[in-house]
Amino acid sequence: MMFEFRVQAVCPETGARAGELVTPHGIIETPVFMPVGTRATVKAMSPREMEEIEAQIVLSNTYHLYLRPGVELIEKAGGLHRFMNWHRPILTDSGGFQVFSLSGINRIKEDGVEFSSHLDGSRHFMTPELATRVQEGLGSDIAMCFDQCVELPCDEETARKSVERTLRWARRCKEVHRRDDQALFGIVQGALFDDLRKDCARELIAMDFPGYSIGGLSVGESHDEMYRILDLLNPILPQEKPRYLMGVGFPTNLVEGVARGVDMFDCVLPTRNGRNGTLLTSRGKFNIKHSRFEEDWGPIDPDCDCYACREFSKAYIRHLYRSGEMLGARLCSWHNLRYLISLMKGAREAILEGRFPQFRDRFHELFSTGKVL
Amino acid sequence: MMFEFRVQAVCPETGARAGELVTPHGIIETPVFMPVGTRATVKAMSPREMEEIEAQIVLSNTYHLYLRPGVELIEKAGGLHRFMNWHRPILTDSGGFQVFSLSGINRIKEDGVEFSSHLDGSRHFMTPELATRVQEGLGSDIAMCFDQCVELPCDEETARKSVERTLRWARRCKEVHRRDDQALFGIVQGALFDDLRKDCARELIAMDFPGYSIGGLSVGESHDEMYRILDLLNPILPQEKPRYLMGVGFPTNLVEGVARGVDMFDCVLPTRNGRNGTLLTSRGKFNIKHSRFEEDWGPIDPDCDCYACREFSKAYIRHLYRSGEMLGARLCSWHNLRYLISLMKGAREAILEGRFPQFRDRFHELFSTGKVL
Repeated sequence: MMFEFRVQAVCPETGARAGELVTPHGIIETPVFMPVGTRATVKAMSPREMEEIEAQIVLSNTYHLYLRPGVELIEKAGGLHRFMNWHRPILTDSGGFQVFSLSGINRIKEDGVEFSSHLDGSRHFMTPELATRVQEGLGSDIAMCFDQCVELPCDEETARKSVERTLRWARRCKEVHRRDDQALFGIVQGALFDDLRKDCARELIAMDFPGYSIGGLSVGESHDEMYRILDLLNPILPQEKPRYLMGVGFPTNLVEGVARGVDMFDCVLPTRNGRNGTLLTSRGKFNIKHSRFEEDWGPIDPDCDCYACREFSKAYIRHLYRSGEMLGARLCSWHNLRYLISLMKGAREAILEGRFPQFRDRFHELFSTGKVL
Repeated sequence: MMFEFRVQAVCPETGARAGELVTPHGIIETPVFMPVGTRATVKAMSPREMEEIEAQIVLSNTYHLYLRPGVELIEKAGGLHRFMNWHRPILTDSGGFQVFSLSGINRIKEDGVEFSSHLDGSRHFMTPELATRVQEGLGSDIAMCFDQCVELPCDEETARKSVERTLRWARRCKEVHRRDDQALFGIVQGALFDDLRKDCARELIAMDFPGYSIGGLSVGESHDEMYRILDLLNPILPQEKPRYLMGVGFPTNLVEGVARGVDMFDCVLPTRNGRNGTLLTSRGKFNIKHSRFEEDWGPIDPDCDCYACREFSKAYIRHLYRSGEMLGARLCSWHNLRYLISLMKGAREAILEGRFPQFRDRFHELFSTGKVL
């Protein structure tokens, strides 16, 4: 089997799962945080640094790569792994989210979405078939169905239509998908409407995808609303398939997502935050530019084993930011990514050892102190 | 001896030297290219990457560090080595060049230079004594006398006055310099006037500095003019002391500088060029953004052993630049630095093995082909 998902342990109290996802480029231990390499590079990081922080898989964006450098060039390179020199698994999104959020004027038709490039205004027409073909060209290990995202707040009728279209498009993606060394996941939409979410999940399950993504969350709703949808889907989604909560990267949401049966997460948060000096740490979130760190010779996070925390002081990293030096963005991105990867590794170990509820309590207690390190 | 310079071999044909400069933070093998870490970081690089490319020493700028974060903070950190986590030798300039080139309005007085910060316009007064004290606070292994630079073209009277002031200031720097774990170099000025250059060198030699810098070159003069000044100084400067040609980093100038008895070079060129995609290679200089590299799957430089050349294609690095991705600037800075360091390492080996003239010919032949790799 090129793809297989094995659940290794389930927390009896919460339903949190530890598992292994077998892919052509290696086995991914879940729960897992997947760093985002939008344009075939995880911002500020090199591939070998990604290996050093034990990133198991990176995500890349079909929309961006389709526009530049184009899938043809990446095919000539021998696929995205070789192009970007990353030899562990890659997940690609379908471009659905970006077509709606990034592009200029877009027109949704039954066949697909007409949109103009955010780079040069050129007109393009993205369809479920094209999104699938592009992802096959990229050669990612895990691909996504082309889906229709809606903005929140959103009325039920709009959400219903987007779910129905997402389902029709999912069928078309599955229909044309050929590569057996690539797993195609279905995406559950339905905004914040419980019945729509359930219906969407059940229809996708009937199509029998090798994994299920939960889309359209972390787009402005409250944490409680997000958790309600996850609680709703947890018992519906098949236990034996991986579940991927798209675009979620805040530490609290990761731990609570795991507690609701989620296996995979991705987000630009750690690298975007890193570039502006915002740090995610075991003691909460803070910005390195704050004057209270001027003479702070301690590490970003005393519990972290990353290069930034092992070798540099907060005072020095603050100086790098104030001076606009690239090493500042590098060290903070590095730490943030390592922190989220370690957090999920810790959750996994706790699940395997039957102490996830304690791990979760301890995380919240420490993270919410937000005390100055 | 905390400082010692040993000439290990001299090319009988050109006078090119291979030597060892002993410093409190290690032995530097010369000739050497010194990467510039203006604000306590070599742009786009981490300290461990600098070790990997075998940087033996880095340069940092007194003017910048004096303004931000301030020498007091760096002293609290335990000195510049600890602040920036670089444990090999550091050379600091005196701030003379920046006071004239970067600051806003400046007024030269006999006592020093009144200038306004390029950061916030605040007024400062830099003197030979302060420049020395600041460098002692930074704790660099090699410090520079505070000198007066003139812009080219420059009339002889202006140049003469600047030489006389530079000599008076050098005496004052030497007078107040206390740290015996820091070598203070004198700087030869004199624009393009042969007699002024000679006089300046002889006066400095009489003051008996542990090393001599050649300043005020690579500021717009022709290569021939630069080489004429070097040819002039080569027999005057004491053989047993190291010679440092300031601000020179173009490969041709490095090799020709070595051929004229220079031991040390520094320049922002490799990192500044790297950030805009300009590459220095064994086959000449080119910009990675050029369309001819669109489908070029080869390395930047087939003769280079750096991470960028070992692991990434020109097509991919071009994509990174076009997408504005930080990894592009990192890989090109990385390569450019490694190239200059390797070039000087190659020159050293050639001198030690008695084949420097052939090395020099071969370098020019290959570098001037400028052929597309």
